[in-house]
Amino acid sequence: MTRLTLHEDPLSGNCYKIRLTAALLGLPLALRQYDIRAGETRTPAFLAEVNANGRIPVLEIDEGEERRFLPESNAACWYLADGSALIPADRFDRADMLRWMFFEQYNHEPNVATLRFWLTYIGEANLTDQQRALLAPKRAAGEEALQLMDQHLATRDWFAGNSASLADIALYAYTHVAEEGGFALGERPHLTRWLGRVAALPGYVPMG
Amino acid sequence: MTRLTLHEDPLSGNCYKIRLTAALLGLPLALRQYDIRAGETRTPAFLAEVNANGRIPVLEIDEGEERRFLPESNAACWYLADGSALIPADRFDRADMLRWMFFEQYNHEPNVATLRFWLTYIGEANLTDQQRALLAPKRAAGEEALQLMDQHLATRDWFAGNSASLADIALYAYTHVAEEGGFALGERPHLTRWLGRVAALPGYVPMG
Repeated sequence: MTRLTLHEDPLSGNCYKIRLTAALLGLPLALRQYDIRAGETRTPAFLAEVNANGRIPVLEIDEGEERRFLPESNAACWYLADGSALIPADRFDRADMLRWMFFEQYNHEPNVATLRFWLTYIGEANLTDQQRALLAPKRAAGEEALQLMDQHLATRDWFAGNSASLADIALYAYTHVAEEGGFALGERPHLTRWLGRVAALPGYVPMG
Repeated sequence: MTRLTLHEDPLSGNCYKIRLTAALLGLPLALRQYDIRAGETRTPAFLAEVNANGRIPVLEIDEGEERRFLPESNAACWYLADGSALIPADRFDRADMLRWMFFEQYNHEPNVATLRFWLTYIGEANLTDQQRALLAPKRAAGEEALQLMDQHLATRDWFAGNSASLADIALYAYTHVAEEGGFALGERPHLTRWLGRVAALPGYVPMG
């Protein structure tokens, strides 16, 4: 029997993606919590055993004789959902789902999630000069990502294919708390309605 | 019959990933070239038809009655390789391959590829103050990514599973030209030997 454990910080949207995927699929998931801000993912033991990259989330897959560790939130979601309806059966749709998941990690998370972390959890007064200089470009890039999402959703209910997929879960995680990073969602009606559709999925669990 | 066209800039490692994947699989790929530095991917026509995100590569998939566009280099590689030996058949290995592809877009490309672009194609003297301030952190993060790769390859020939996969292609693209970004590869023996293994794959084509 496979036993799944998520190494996580409950404040992290990247960790939430995996919890939400497991919940939608009805998969049991044990939790092992860390405080990122206290450096708990940079200890020698964590680096040696869980993730040499010093980051969470990491999905631990324990099959009795072998324990394996899978870093990167979107890869862990893929592992859980492999073979389920959360990954489209159509070849183009499946690649298109991955397209939005790569967009999420490249254009969305480094801007929308980073500003949320800086402004809500570190505090603007405590930022370094370098972080302060990045507020404006990250604000602009985050707005651009949210705008592109709103535009895409003007003509469709879900990001890829015709039903909810991992692309929706990956993009939902930091979008639904984007206001904690100072982003306004109210002026993006398609995005706002899509947030409601995700929250209404059977099995949905909230963040935190 | 499906006709594939890659919208690309030959200087871009992200575009090269797709050309290399197609070559290793023996798939014909038409090329449509753009000059990123001349803003050719930000024209109204490009944004409306090819990619609203204003970026290349984009894989165009023409099936006669329908033409579809797939942005994001790693998603386009997945589309081409779906069902082939470049995507591991084992569930964990498949997710682990995606893990390294997400690592590539999050930890590697924004540092290793960006410094190459700034130093070799824009020129250090032409950088903005903001770009200049990011040289040191991007240098450190790029070195960290290359170090992690070298460490991973100390005990294995390929990034995921037991043979070449899309993870190797994705990471190869900007690693093999990392010296153009001022990164030293010589002191990383496992990484250097892996570069040789990728270049020796049947069907391999060089960049550019």
